[in-house]
Amino acid sequence: MPTKARAAILYAFHEPFRIEEIELADPKEGEVLVEMHSCGICHSDISMIDGSVPEGGLPIVLGHEGAGVVRALGPGVKSLQIGDHVLPMPMAECGQCESCRSRKSNFCDNGMQSLFGNVAMDGTIRATVGGRPLHQMCGVGAFSTHTVVHEAKVAKIDSGAPMEGACLVSCAVSTGVGAVIYDAKVPPGATVAVFGLGAIGLNIVQGARLAGAKTIIGLDRIADREGPGRALGLTHFVQVGPGVDAVEEIRKISPGGVEFAFDAVGGSAVARQALSSTRIGCGLAVLIGVPDGADLNVSYYDIIMGRRLMGSMLGGVHPLADAPRLVELERAGKLNFDTLITHRLPFERINEGIELLRAGKAIRTVLSF
Amino acid sequence: MPTKARAAILYAFHEPFRIEEIELADPKEGEVLVEMHSCGICHSDISMIDGSVPEGGLPIVLGHEGAGVVRALGPGVKSLQIGDHVLPMPMAECGQCESCRSRKSNFCDNGMQSLFGNVAMDGTIRATVGGRPLHQMCGVGAFSTHTVVHEAKVAKIDSGAPMEGACLVSCAVSTGVGAVIYDAKVPPGATVAVFGLGAIGLNIVQGARLAGAKTIIGLDRIADREGPGRALGLTHFVQVGPGVDAVEEIRKISPGGVEFAFDAVGGSAVARQALSSTRIGCGLAVLIGVPDGADLNVSYYDIIMGRRLMGSMLGGVHPLADAPRLVELERAGKLNFDTLITHRLPFERINEGIELLRAGKAIRTVLSF
Repeated sequence: MPTKARAAILYAFHEPFRIEEIELADPKEGEVLVEMHSCGICHSDISMIDGSVPEGGLPIVLGHEGAGVVRALGPGVKSLQIGDHVLPMPMAECGQCESCRSRKSNFCDNGMQSLFGNVAMDGTIRATVGGRPLHQMCGVGAFSTHTVVHEAKVAKIDSGAPMEGACLVSCAVSTGVGAVIYDAKVPPGATVAVFGLGAIGLNIVQGARLAGAKTIIGLDRIADREGPGRALGLTHFVQVGPGVDAVEEIRKISPGGVEFAFDAVGGSAVARQALSSTRIGCGLAVLIGVPDGADLNVSYYDIIMGRRLMGSMLGGVHPLADAPRLVELERAGKLNFDTLITHRLPFERINEGIELLRAGKAIRTVLSF
Repeated sequence: MPTKARAAILYAFHEPFRIEEIELADPKEGEVLVEMHSCGICHSDISMIDGSVPEGGLPIVLGHEGAGVVRALGPGVKSLQIGDHVLPMPMAECGQCESCRSRKSNFCDNGMQSLFGNVAMDGTIRATVGGRPLHQMCGVGAFSTHTVVHEAKVAKIDSGAPMEGACLVSCAVSTGVGAVIYDAKVPPGATVAVFGLGAIGLNIVQGARLAGAKTIIGLDRIADREGPGRALGLTHFVQVGPGVDAVEEIRKISPGGVEFAFDAVGGSAVARQALSSTRIGCGLAVLIGVPDGADLNVSYYDIIMGRRLMGSMLGGVHPLADAPRLVELERAGKLNFDTLITHRLPFERINEGIELLRAGKAIRTVLSF
């Protein structure tokens, strides 16, 4: 029997969500029904609202940073049980495809359609509103009291971990901390610059601290980001804005440039600065921010001089294997989720949460269901 | 007493060399006098002739792919003796700077000025013609019967190694083979595409074979490059040209793209293709070719999808430590230098050698002194 849920639905770009009752199909082979407990609001949700991500597919339930409890199992589910505390993750880990088997990539071949098509792993739709098919962002659609997701996208976490913080591992923590430890593999003693101190950037900061970086330079337009930045590991803060040459400021602090620069802002101009701020011969710029167009334009000379550039999606995190570890790291006091949560709202006030993020007031607003 | 030598001098861009007598200052602290035995002609020499590399400094003696014999020692030389067979390398390995000590980069901090300023390691000039100061390309100026170079740029090789082939290790072999094994670190079983099958590209091919790559796809406009390419390890050849979509051809051979693509052509358009031809989530494009402008323009989407891009200079080779090993690998039958040498000319006919390379007729012309 289909499950009735309440979800925040985007019917048209640039419009507020409407919270309505939806119907979720019963979990199919390998799928589970998750009751959402907490969900963070991410800039990617705003990108979807603004239609800047091509594969919208309206109407849609956004949200991809949730934590909840397994309430029902479809046939053949092996890795989960009813009552498990879980993170429904935007990316999958089927364990069968070349990417999963080789561990060279966290872009699970069998999860791509779900991730970018906002559908279930099998390419079909699980949710309807008044009989009308509903897309679910990244195949999750976490802005909903319930969702149905394939077990290949559901990471089981310690039932003692508070879900209000753990939900951030579904996106921001994985994306930021993972970019440092899994993708860039920052070693102890390294020099690091972080462009943008939103939730992703701040997680890069704490990832760099966890990795033992000696210099961690954060850059943001918002002066208020220095406080949480320093709390999470920043050694230097640069307020960027008109008249400030970010690359020059970084080189003043770290002569010759940093070994690692992370772009958690997005757009070709910032990506170019990130690359230029790294050391000749070994510098690595990691791009995480959302593109501002089809083309990435950097200095050719910067690359030829032995620098490297890479994209990082969900921090290179293999969702089932790595996400629970990040939750454990917070429990062990090595990561900090509390500093990231600046606002808490009941799910019904989700549109306020969106505005808080747009205005740069919130780092993370966590919705409770 | 200064040494008299005969050198090929570039007095003006786009002009042929004039072979004239020059004077070389006695080797200073840490420097040696090398008598040249063999020298290859490289596309970078043509870039310098054409003035497309900014730091020309005319007049200049080009050439950076030589092999010779140590004939005199300056004060304090520790690593070399008179009679040693050596490669005067374009890049240095001082062993003292952060790049050399950390081994993270082969851009020796103390060698940068020599490499790009075409001067000695101490930033001054060693050669004159009729009393007029002469730059020496990369601080080497190997198109000359003799040169004076700091020991930090002089790799000692086995005296049994034929210098006609070994000279190619000073540039082409290091750049190509090194890019595969030191920079990209291609593992056995990997899939590889090589854009451009000149001397660098062909060395990438044999580097990939040496690394145990299972698929090695070579692309060139010149159909005749298939033969040497296959001799050195190509498993597939694609003749590019109007109407041929290089990325599509690579994906036909290696579904989903290759793990590693090397751009040995240069220019943003080919670099973009190289990146696009790699696998989502783990693909690495290595750029070796000379830039065609200040900006590198690639697909932003390609990077965001977990691909990586890096520049490689001299293949990441640490000249003193690694170049002699590459010479040994040929002696052991694991690399092949003979296939690369399509033409041999006496030094005096160097201008013919330049034209052979421009016309795409030569892979390498080796000059003998």
